[in-house]
Amino acid sequence: MLSSAPFECPSGLLAHAQQHLPLKTAVVNAEKETVMTSAKLATEHNLIEPILVGDAGAINSIATAINWDIGKFTVVDAGSEIEAAKLSVGLARSGEVFALMKGHIHSETLMQEALQRKQGIRLKRRPSHAFYMTVPGNEQGICITDAVINVLPRVKQKIEIARNVIELMHALGTPKPRVAMISGTELLTPEMPSSMDAAEVVKAAESGALPGAEIAGPMSLDVAISEQAATIKGVNNAVAGKADVLLVPNLEAGEILFKQMVYSMSATAAGLVLGMKVPIMLTSRADPPEARLASAALASVYVAHRDL
Amino acid sequence: MLSSAPFECPSGLLAHAQQHLPLKTAVVNAEKETVMTSAKLATEHNLIEPILVGDAGAINSIATAINWDIGKFTVVDAGSEIEAAKLSVGLARSGEVFALMKGHIHSETLMQEALQRKQGIRLKRRPSHAFYMTVPGNEQGICITDAVINVLPRVKQKIEIARNVIELMHALGTPKPRVAMISGTELLTPEMPSSMDAAEVVKAAESGALPGAEIAGPMSLDVAISEQAATIKGVNNAVAGKADVLLVPNLEAGEILFKQMVYSMSATAAGLVLGMKVPIMLTSRADPPEARLASAALASVYVAHRDL
Repeated sequence: MLSSAPFECPSGLLAHAQQHLPLKTAVVNAEKETVMTSAKLATEHNLIEPILVGDAGAINSIATAINWDIGKFTVVDAGSEIEAAKLSVGLARSGEVFALMKGHIHSETLMQEALQRKQGIRLKRRPSHAFYMTVPGNEQGICITDAVINVLPRVKQKIEIARNVIELMHALGTPKPRVAMISGTELLTPEMPSSMDAAEVVKAAESGALPGAEIAGPMSLDVAISEQAATIKGVNNAVAGKADVLLVPNLEAGEILFKQMVYSMSATAAGLVLGMKVPIMLTSRADPPEARLASAALASVYVAHRDL
Repeated sequence: MLSSAPFECPSGLLAHAQQHLPLKTAVVNAEKETVMTSAKLATEHNLIEPILVGDAGAINSIATAINWDIGKFTVVDAGSEIEAAKLSVGLARSGEVFALMKGHIHSETLMQEALQRKQGIRLKRRPSHAFYMTVPGNEQGICITDAVINVLPRVKQKIEIARNVIELMHALGTPKPRVAMISGTELLTPEMPSSMDAAEVVKAAESGALPGAEIAGPMSLDVAISEQAATIKGVNNAVAGKADVLLVPNLEAGEILFKQMVYSMSATAAGLVLGMKVPIMLTSRADPPEARLASAALASVYVAHRDL
C-alpha cells in the first residue's frame, strides 16, 4: 500500500520563497552528511544563508566530501549536541539568525533549549507545529496541525494552535483560510471530548478570537476534505469539503495522518514550529530531501510575512 | 487529493466467505433503499440470509421498487428504530441470527441495545471494532483497530482490543498476525501516554496474554508499514515494516487513518464489531456498496471460524 511516486518540492512554494532574500538560518548540529546535504540544497536554492553549528572539524571535512564550498559561511564550533542547541538558540535570540534548522540532534533536546524561559526564544504565545502537505502534480496544499508538539491540547491550546496556523496560511497567500476542527464525529458528544473542544473553539472564533479565517467543526476527515461526503452527511458550512487546515484532535491522530499521506500519496511534508521568535524546521531522519527543501521554503515565506 | 479509482470488494475475501453457508443476519431497520440494496447485494452474493427488521410496509414496497423478491425471507415488523434494534438484538440473543447488519439507525442507538447487560448480546469480553482495509488490485489487507467504539482505551482495554483482532486475523487465515502498537514515537515517554501503553501491552504479550500473534511497539505508522523507514530508524523486530494490524492509540487517530485510506487510495473498509455474541456490521451513510459487501464477507468468515 506504499506509493512509489517520487516526492516533489512544490514549485509554487519554492518560487514564492525565492522572491525573498535567503533566510539567515542556524543549522543545529550540522556535523552529519545528510544534514550538510540538506543545508547545501537549501542554500543552492537561495532559500537560506546558513550558519553551521557543530563540530567544526567534521563540518569542514563533510563540506569537502560533498563538494560544498562553505568558505563564505560562518561555522560555529560546538562540542556536543546540547552546546550546538544552546549556541544556535543564542544566535536566534540575539537576532543573528531568523530561523533554526534541526540537524543531527533529537527534537526534544533542541526544543528544550528553545523553550527555556530565560535563555530561549519563546514569545508570549504557545508554540505549535504545522505541516504544509502537497502531493506530486498539485500545488494546492493542506495544513495539518499539531502533529508534533502538543500531545493532547484542550480548548485553550487549540485556539492558540489555530492562531499560529492562520498566520502561516496568511503568509502563504490565503487571506481567509478554512480551518476544520477534526473529530471522530459531527455530533457533539461528551464521550468524545474532541467534539466538545471543537465546538468551543468555533464559539470562540465566532466571538472574534480568531480573525482572518473560517472555522468550523466538529467534523470528521471525510466531511472536511470531500464535498461529496459533506453533501451525503448534510454538513453545509464554509469549511466542509474544502478545508485548507485540518486541526487534529491530538498529536497521534495528526502524526498518523501526515505519515499516511507521505507513504500512500508521496506527499511532501514541509514542517515548522510556529509561534516562537523564529521558526524551527524540524525534520526527521526518514524525511526525503524534498521535504527538507520545502520546509526551508516555508520558513522563508513565513518569516517574510511576519516582518512586513 | 482525493482518489478517483473505483472501490473494489476484495475477491479473495469474497471467495473465502462463499465457502460457507449464507450467514443468518438481522438487518436492523431495513426500511431505506440504500439499506435494502446492501442487503440484496449481500444476499445475491450468498453471504447472508437476511431477516429484515423494520416497517414491514416500507420494506415490502422498497423490495418491489428495487426488484428484489423477498418472499422467502422473514420480515419482522418494528414501529421505530429503537424497536428494530431491540427485536434484532433479541434474534441474536436467542440464536435465530448469527450477525447483525446496521440499517437506517444511528450506531449509538444500535450499540446501546446490543450492549445492555441483561437484554443485550455482551460476552465477558470487551467489544471492539476492527476495519479490514484493502486497496484496489491488492488482496493483502491490513487491520485498523479501534477506530469506532473505544474512544481512549488504556492498557487493559488495548489488550482486549488486540485479543479481538487477533481472533479476526486467525479467521482470515493469518495464524500469527503482526500487531503494531502505534504511537507518535518509538521512544517511551510519559509525555505521550500511548507510548507507555504500547510498551505495557507488549510486556503483557510477552507474558503470554496474547497468544497466536507477534506484538511490538510503540512504533509510528511509517515504521509499522515501511521496511525502509524501519531500517532508517533502526527498528528491527518481527512486526516493523510488515504489520498486519495497526492498533491505534485512540479512536480519532484510527478514524482519520481509515478515512484517509478510503479517500486517498480508494481503500475498501470492511468493518465489524468484535467480541460480542454475534458480529455487528456497522456501516456509515457515506460508505460505498463495496464496503458493505466486504463487511458481510468479513462477518461470514469471522463467524465460521468462531464456530469451529
